[in-house]
Amino acid sequence: MSKLRVHSLALSLDGFATGEGQSFEAPFGHAGGRLMEWFFPTRTFVGMSGHEDEAVGAGTVGVDDAFASATERNIGAEIMGRGKFGPQTGPWEDDSWRGWWGDEPPFHTPVVVLTHHERPDLVVGETTFLFRQLAPHAALELATELADGRDVRLGGGPTVVREFLEADLVDHLHIVVVPIVLGRGVRLWDGLEGLEERFTVEVTASPSGVVHYVFSRRP
Amino acid sequence: MSKLRVHSLALSLDGFATGEGQSFEAPFGHAGGRLMEWFFPTRTFVGMSGHEDEAVGAGTVGVDDAFASATERNIGAEIMGRGKFGPQTGPWEDDSWRGWWGDEPPFHTPVVVLTHHERPDLVVGETTFLFRQLAPHAALELATELADGRDVRLGGGPTVVREFLEADLVDHLHIVVVPIVLGRGVRLWDGLEGLEERFTVEVTASPSGVVHYVFSRRP
Repeated sequence: MSKLRVHSLALSLDGFATGEGQSFEAPFGHAGGRLMEWFFPTRTFVGMSGHEDEAVGAGTVGVDDAFASATERNIGAEIMGRGKFGPQTGPWEDDSWRGWWGDEPPFHTPVVVLTHHERPDLVVGETTFLFRQLAPHAALELATELADGRDVRLGGGPTVVREFLEADLVDHLHIVVVPIVLGRGVRLWDGLEGLEERFTVEVTASPSGVVHYVFSRRP
Repeated sequence: MSKLRVHSLALSLDGFATGEGQSFEAPFGHAGGRLMEWFFPTRTFVGMSGHEDEAVGAGTVGVDDAFASATERNIGAEIMGRGKFGPQTGPWEDDSWRGWWGDEPPFHTPVVVLTHHERPDLVVGETTFLFRQLAPHAALELATELADGRDVRLGGGPTVVREFLEADLVDHLHIVVVPIVLGRGVRLWDGLEGLEERFTVEVTASPSGVVHYVFSRRP
């Protein structure tokens, strides 16, 4: 049975998954890279970004990498919000924007991009982006079909994750709480009162200072 | 040098230190006892409440108790908000309310109760409550004098703790994050953006599912 999984969604102590003022130069707004600093030293990130030969070496392989590396396992498709694909809003002016990731995006699967403004499917390297206006249930149905027996990753941002949690479609939710107070931005938990009743929760603190929460939906 | 310390301030994942709808019957509002469930089994709580002979036995002595027991150490006075002393608001109708704690409150020191509505000092067992309208700096000055060389505990609630954090008067802040989503109530972190820059942070996950954060003010 195909599952819907969220991985490595980082939050500040006050529950913000992204800062205020997102733009092309600042995809996380005023949060900058602070929500992902735990991730950058991991072998998983170093491998993804092709930096094996640089000073950072091959990357760390501790708790943070153990969680980071689970992101890729047995994933056949991703669902993401338009804000993760690009900083533009409103109708597409043209089809020149091909995402943040260059010629070989790290997905290597079909990616369903949820948007009110559809555009033709886009193939970049091994990844195909499908731009669709779909409610959570329908988006999951499409992505599950594309995943061909493997799981579906829900890639964010936080507003999209919240919508799928409200619809009770998420099976596995991995949250990383970073010990900073952002003060403003987009919150994850709003409207999710009592979420813990639908999940079991496992908690692991990392020497890096972040805490990994894994919420597994109760059968 | 006397320090100002906060201990065992419990927050939900979404940052609420108390629920909505506080009353005599529900001191934590709709949160009920959920924010303190990690605390009730500890030897520290069992000892405080005089329940040693009950089924719970002598209490647990793991991580949660290690943090809980630090609350009492070397404390010479407490500062608390009026909401911790009682559920009433506005002028005191009479002096019959003597706190939640019966004939022997667990403080055994002077307690400065911050209120816009002063009333005569109140001695209950080994504890003296002083009702004062004071700003954070002046309250700390009074409590420090009363503590006579020992530290001062800042007992909450969250609004009072936030005010003292804003005034940068807190030396030691122990937060317990409970893996529940409360959705509504009183938040701790509002207005404290960048707090982590003034503190070092140590993080410990407990088998009970809560996470202990200790913020120590940078020298």
